[in-house]
Amino acid sequence: MTRILISETPNFVGKIIEIAGWVSVRRDHGKLIFIDLRDRSGMVQAVVIPDKEEVYKIAKDIRSEYAVKVAGLVKERPGKSANEKLATGKVEIEVEEMEIIARPEEELPVDVSDPEFNLNLETLLDYRIVTLRNEKVQAIFKIYAQVLEAYSEVMRERGFLEIKTPKILSSATEGGANFFKIKYFNQEAFLAQSPQFYKQAGVSVFERVFEVGSVFRAEPHFTSRHVNEYIGLDAEMAFISGFAEVMDELEKTMQYILESVAKNCRSELEKYGAEIPTFVPIPRIKLTEAVEILSNEYGKKIENLDIDSEGEKLISQWAKKEHNSDFVFLTHYPYNLRPFYSMPSADPEYTETFDLIYRGVEIASGGQRINNYQELLKNIKKRKMKPEQFKDYLDIFKYGIPPHGGWGLGSERIVQKILGLGSIKEAILFPRDVKRLTP
Amino acid sequence: MTRILISETPNFVGKIIEIAGWVSVRRDHGKLIFIDLRDRSGMVQAVVIPDKEEVYKIAKDIRSEYAVKVAGLVKERPGKSANEKLATGKVEIEVEEMEIIARPEEELPVDVSDPEFNLNLETLLDYRIVTLRNEKVQAIFKIYAQVLEAYSEVMRERGFLEIKTPKILSSATEGGANFFKIKYFNQEAFLAQSPQFYKQAGVSVFERVFEVGSVFRAEPHFTSRHVNEYIGLDAEMAFISGFAEVMDELEKTMQYILESVAKNCRSELEKYGAEIPTFVPIPRIKLTEAVEILSNEYGKKIENLDIDSEGEKLISQWAKKEHNSDFVFLTHYPYNLRPFYSMPSADPEYTETFDLIYRGVEIASGGQRINNYQELLKNIKKRKMKPEQFKDYLDIFKYGIPPHGGWGLGSERIVQKILGLGSIKEAILFPRDVKRLTP
Repeated sequence: MTRILISETPNFVGKIIEIAGWVSVRRDHGKLIFIDLRDRSGMVQAVVIPDKEEVYKIAKDIRSEYAVKVAGLVKERPGKSANEKLATGKVEIEVEEMEIIARPEEELPVDVSDPEFNLNLETLLDYRIVTLRNEKVQAIFKIYAQVLEAYSEVMRERGFLEIKTPKILSSATEGGANFFKIKYFNQEAFLAQSPQFYKQAGVSVFERVFEVGSVFRAEPHFTSRHVNEYIGLDAEMAFISGFAEVMDELEKTMQYILESVAKNCRSELEKYGAEIPTFVPIPRIKLTEAVEILSNEYGKKIENLDIDSEGEKLISQWAKKEHNSDFVFLTHYPYNLRPFYSMPSADPEYTETFDLIYRGVEIASGGQRINNYQELLKNIKKRKMKPEQFKDYLDIFKYGIPPHGGWGLGSERIVQKILGLGSIKEAILFPRDVKRLTP
Repeated sequence: MTRILISETPNFVGKIIEIAGWVSVRRDHGKLIFIDLRDRSGMVQAVVIPDKEEVYKIAKDIRSEYAVKVAGLVKERPGKSANEKLATGKVEIEVEEMEIIARPEEELPVDVSDPEFNLNLETLLDYRIVTLRNEKVQAIFKIYAQVLEAYSEVMRERGFLEIKTPKILSSATEGGANFFKIKYFNQEAFLAQSPQFYKQAGVSVFERVFEVGSVFRAEPHFTSRHVNEYIGLDAEMAFISGFAEVMDELEKTMQYILESVAKNCRSELEKYGAEIPTFVPIPRIKLTEAVEILSNEYGKKIENLDIDSEGEKLISQWAKKEHNSDFVFLTHYPYNLRPFYSMPSADPEYTETFDLIYRGVEIASGGQRINNYQELLKNIKKRKMKPEQFKDYLDIFKYGIPPHGGWGLGSERIVQKILGLGSIKEAILFPRDVKRLTP
């Protein structure tokens, strides 16, 4: 017999089928044994009656998280007992045969069948291999996969070519100190802090490129929104007339991602009581204006335009209140707070750059880049960095590269904020932070 | 005016349009100036007539690889002069306005307009930022993007969930010596040699998972098929009855990828005279049989079943000759040539594993894994490795994990072999090898 998925069982009422999965809970009611069986598609109840002696013996033996194969008759559940919340809750399987195919070596450290599953973050991550089995936790990664799928889809639709760029570099991409060093045969090398330079090389060839790839940041921060390794959703586009075009494109992208999650992940969103409201145009406000709003509306003072995480939260509240938007673009960051390749604004103290804030957290950073070799060289020197260190980067601009810009978008923060998770680490299968390198 | 893509120009005959792109070649014929203009969608000829004095002056000034914006009238080219090979070869643009938007700082080190472009590998890679502009080189990365797209598509269709797993690890994944060390704050860490352990953790939760991600191998080999950083196309699936199911799935995957490239990348394949023949069922032969075939048919001796790259080439020739297949599965590798987690065959000297050879090169490796905790522990000890080092990995097997298997597939080797490229490095935007860390 061929195994079918649990989600398919309602189509087989009156038929004998075979399913396989993990035992979520075993309950004994009088002489009957009830088993909630879980596979990748969902959960269904299996019933073992004492008449089937051999099966009954096996069923007595099984515990939570045993992997089993079950053959049985699909029956409609009587009206009262039907679990209406599950599509598969209207049927049950009367077990004819059962085989244990894998059994735990020891007791599970946590009860993964708990639908609430309010573990503290350390426990959740220390026992990740087990805690991932909880359905509520699984929902996070189904949404995560949807975000990845939607991003690639919308990028391709909009004419971006997918590229993959190296993560081992001969020099630190963005300068600064937040890089990991590696030993590369007899040389020293660095892990990529972003695909910035390579995606700019990409636009000098393909005009529009995107990348989904690992980003490594040796930031010492231990917060709910930082990790040291994450998956960046990058894009870069050429022949732009200004950085507003980059924001337009990112806005379309976010709308596409959210609508795709809303459409395809209803039951997963429900587990978190998460809602994705109708997308509205994203307000774009200058950072200087944002600082004024923070001061006038919330009595919050920001020094040197260096907006902090609380400021981002408050300006997000303001955007929701005033524009009914979960998103807000902050634009025109000061020159000294942005990387050396940022295009200066008409007033050269500012730059043609933006951050995108979603529900209180910065999820993307971007802008127009300097595309003139001499100007870039000047900027590198102005910042007291060494042009030799940026030779490969500078080479890109030697051979004619049109005006361009792009963004770096954090995949995990999107999921964190969609679901309202307390920490970004919940949205990563096996997160890495200053203190955590395992499992 | 809004810019249109060059590929759209044939739809605008008789209309004034705006395009932008790079100058591939400028030719002066008598008083006329012809410009081959290239954007991400294709190439078209623009004509500047001396009557338009201002434009003519600008056109006289431009050189190859200038980025320009052009407004002009789309005209059908007279029958004789039409370039029938290009879709856009039937039209030309009579230039009305022209603006230089970026100009090279210096002469290009190579002529990127050369359709043959037979550079040696070192030159091709040293000047990567420039050589990528050649249309033949670009074709490689359009096919590469198609392979990535097709892989994700077929995986999703077959019920695999996309996951992303950490690349910074506390211990070397596969054991052995081929890992890069990194300094992780105050600890030592390693770059992932494969997502092996994490995708196995994935199947213990999601049954079927796939990952597209960076793989780092500190192999000292300097060959046409090795690089030290590549993009692995990984998959792992649970509830299998044997490793033949894994080969079935991989076979479907390869068929899907190739058919997708054949369908969507015709002009790119043509540039290399590359053909993708109709897919035929992939022959599966035991490694021991392969060794006999090599000896009997080609007089090639293989010691200890350790088939070398020449052996792989010859057995591929045999598969083409006997089965008309570009692919061949070699199965049942000896225990001592496979990782410790490989499922032993009925004869425990062999394993339930395979390699997939495509046109003479191994592109994938896979098999069934041991899913029993005690057996795995025994195997680790038998190989004189330390169980403590594999604690996190072993934990996966403590809590009931069904029979499973999977593969690691090299994305770049697929493209190399589709196009018949001399080196895998040609199929990577910015490759990393023992000697190359730049650009």
